[in-house]
Amino acid sequence: GAMMKRRLLLVSNSTLHGGGYLDHCQQHIQHFFGKQVQRILFVPYALHDRDSYAKLVRDKFRSLGYEVDSIHEAADPLQAVRKAQGIFIGGGNTFRLLKTLYDHNLMSEIKRRVLVEGLPYMGSSAGTNVSTVSIHTTNDMPIVYPPTLAAIGLLPFNINPHYLDPDPNSKHMGETREQRIVQYHEEPDTPRVLGLREGSMLLVEGEKATLLGSTGARLFTRGQAPAEYTPGSDLSFLLTEQK
Amino acid sequence: GAMMKRRLLLVSNSTLHGGGYLDHCQQHIQHFFGKQVQRILFVPYALHDRDSYAKLVRDKFRSLGYEVDSIHEAADPLQAVRKAQGIFIGGGNTFRLLKTLYDHNLMSEIKRRVLVEGLPYMGSSAGTNVSTVSIHTTNDMPIVYPPTLAAIGLLPFNINPHYLDPDPNSKHMGETREQRIVQYHEEPDTPRVLGLREGSMLLVEGEKATLLGSTGARLFTRGQAPAEYTPGSDLSFLLTEQK
Ligand SMILES: [Ca+2]
Ligand SMILES: [Ca+2]
Repeated sequence: GAMMKRRLLLVSNSTLHGGGYLDHCQQHIQHFFGKQVQRILFVPYALHDRDSYAKLVRDKFRSLGYEVDSIHEAADPLQAVRKAQGIFIGGGNTFRLLKTLYDHNLMSEIKRRVLVEGLPYMGSSAGTNVSTVSIHTTNDMPIVYPPTLAAIGLLPFNINPHYLDPDPNSKHMGETREQRIVQYHEEPDTPRVLGLREGSMLLVEGEKATLLGSTGARLFTRGQAPAEYTPGSDLSFLLTEQK
Repeated sequence: GAMMKRRLLLVSNSTLHGGGYLDHCQQHIQHFFGKQVQRILFVPYALHDRDSYAKLVRDKFRSLGYEVDSIHEAADPLQAVRKAQGIFIGGGNTFRLLKTLYDHNLMSEIKRRVLVEGLPYMGSSAGTNVSTVSIHTTNDMPIVYPPTLAAIGLLPFNINPHYLDPDPNSKHMGETREQRIVQYHEEPDTPRVLGLREGSMLLVEGEKATLLGSTGARLFTRGQAPAEYTPGSDLSFLLTEQK
């Protein structure tokens, strides 16, 4: 099927504590885009200052051997997606990112290029959220109102990036991350949620999904106890639609 | 004007670390509802288990001298709002709460009863969010999709409940609360945001607003530096629409 071409590198967070931008995943990035890809289309819509965001990303990817075209500098964003050799959607505010992707009518073309034509898709944080079923499990503040929370749908489950374990010493009384995801699963017909800790990433190659990085992930399934997965785990079963 | 009747007690959080449900604000609750009010209409829509939520609230308010009617037990929720002597909207998930208020067509009747007829309105956390201009500054996960993020509009500004100062020792790389609110103010025509720390509450009596509690608040205004307010501060200037 069409899904066989799908190639995704979905990163929980762009910057790990104590490191530089994308440092902790740079070897995975080079392995993912490989030597075939020379230019990567960057989508900076999740942040307000697109120029400085594009500069940050351009500098980093140049150091890894790739040129970057930022979609906000393209005369025709849809055409930029059509021509891209690889795409990277960066983090920031997930609501702003999703709304802007809809405003520019880019959702279905990104989906088609990734699923049908095998365009390599890298996402970080908000850019990971928008690759899934929906952004219902973002951590971000709803600073704008998108036309729907449905996302690109490159996967049949949701991701919670920056997944955070409860802090036993915290005196803050807001919901823990796990409590928030459990509230999501109180709603009917909600898909699985993969809680990707900072330092983790998910690599999808066709029908195979592998957990990379150093910190593991916690999987939430409606009506079931959460399950822990260690780095290196084969998560291909997540690519099958839930019954 | 109509605003002169407005009476609001807006609590950041229902439970302070180490205390019981609503313990930290119980004297303010008794002072707010006073002796005239005998029965309070409770809105449990922010949590999934409405029965146990109503029991928690009923037990607490009985100990303070008030009977509680939970709106989820009413045959006609709109009629329950029409007849209420006082209303308390509890915390939980703000998206679920707002969507349910719209689903039951309660928004404009609550607004009318509070602003025109002086119905005393108490909110906690999500119940505080929905009293403001919009829920764009909630901390909650968008587990459902309301028809709009516009809220009841009892005030001309927004509140961020559970406001949290940055933790200098944190290694987590998600945005701080202040960064999230600054991102909101990157969007055009966004109102002020009062960051109410846990342990703080806002009392509004007509045209007078007072910061109560023990922890203070941080005010964010688009294009200006944030400002700190200590407990007891007169915040009546917030009740004036921004130019
Ligand atoms: Ca974010
Ligand atoms: Ca909440």
